[in-house]
Amino acid sequence: MTTAMREVGRSTRELGGENISRVACRIFRERGYHATSMRAIASALGWQPAALYYYYASKEELLFRIMENAVDTLAAYVREHVDPESSATERLRQAISAHVTLIADHLDELSVFLHEMKSLSPRRREVIQAKIARYEHIFRDILRDGVVSGELARVDTRLARYLILSACNWLYNWYRPDGVYEPDTIAVAFGDMILNGLAATERR
Amino acid sequence: MTTAMREVGRSTRELGGENISRVACRIFRERGYHATSMRAIASALGWQPAALYYYYASKEELLFRIMENAVDTLAAYVREHVDPESSATERLRQAISAHVTLIADHLDELSVFLHEMKSLSPRRREVIQAKIARYEHIFRDILRDGVVSGELARVDTRLARYLILSACNWLYNWYRPDGVYEPDTIAVAFGDMILNGLAATERR
Repeated sequence: MTTAMREVGRSTRELGGENISRVACRIFRERGYHATSMRAIASALGWQPAALYYYYASKEELLFRIMENAVDTLAAYVREHVDPESSATERLRQAISAHVTLIADHLDELSVFLHEMKSLSPRRREVIQAKIARYEHIFRDILRDGVVSGELARVDTRLARYLILSACNWLYNWYRPDGVYEPDTIAVAFGDMILNGLAATERR
Repeated sequence: MTTAMREVGRSTRELGGENISRVACRIFRERGYHATSMRAIASALGWQPAALYYYYASKEELLFRIMENAVDTLAAYVREHVDPESSATERLRQAISAHVTLIADHLDELSVFLHEMKSLSPRRREVIQAKIARYEHIFRDILRDGVVSGELARVDTRLARYLILSACNWLYNWYRPDGVYEPDTIAVAFGDMILNGLAATERR
């Protein structure tokens, strides 16, 4: 096989992979991973099952690639939107905003990502969990910086991180692309509420 | 059948139902609803499948009863812990605390409740969703009261409700009964962070 042929082969695989992933996520989200067969995914793509096995050796490999891609995409997107020169408060807003926006734009993927961890083999689950932990360090570091600099209150930063990520993650459960809220509106409102709280104060 | 016999019959059903529900929730949570058979649940109870069908006509009826019980229990528990005479701020703390405590004490049930909505038939899903909507009204009313009375900032109360319930619901994903946090600690910290926000202010 020439290099050019390998390149073409790889592009096709990647394009195919992207399409498979999108279709698979939609079906996994609707029916759940266990209730979905490779045959059903192939059929939704208008393919024979054998064509699907050309890309993924098993349904679990397909799930793993979806989850790996979800966490990698989320981490890259949030890192890209957090300006290391900004204050902790600003970085927290940037990170919340990026996380919310990405979830709103990838509801199926994030829903599968957040629901199907239990369906991975222990070894693969570990790989994904290590990536999630690294992703969450973005928030951990911002919160710690903010407490140290005095910008943020002396809260338990781990519970603060859980609170923030929970609020953002749960979005996939209630957000509707055709609903009343734009992702930006939610992102700004969540940033405000998380930073300023709900209690009325003199400063408002 | 005499009334007394019906009473005894009902108690046995209820006791059996409670045990089935606990075991079924554990297995549904571990493997997912679709991957779990009635046979597997019966086997975990040390029963023949026929004994399980004495209580529930189908696996979906079992799921429905679990979900109905989860939302009814949550709603009753939170209503019981919210003192209608308290200020909106206090009621919000009470409701957050009750929701967090109940989730921490019923991780399997709430996990199934929050994951398996898609596995219900449309008609039964509607019944559960109507109950959830009524439950969420507790939070909606507290938030509205607080904004009207001026205790709470003029936030979008729907987004505030989503933020609060998301943070509380997601607990089932990270909370470990043998971990470092007591449910009460989480409840108080979440109440504080949600009301006061993370930003440092003069009042701290």
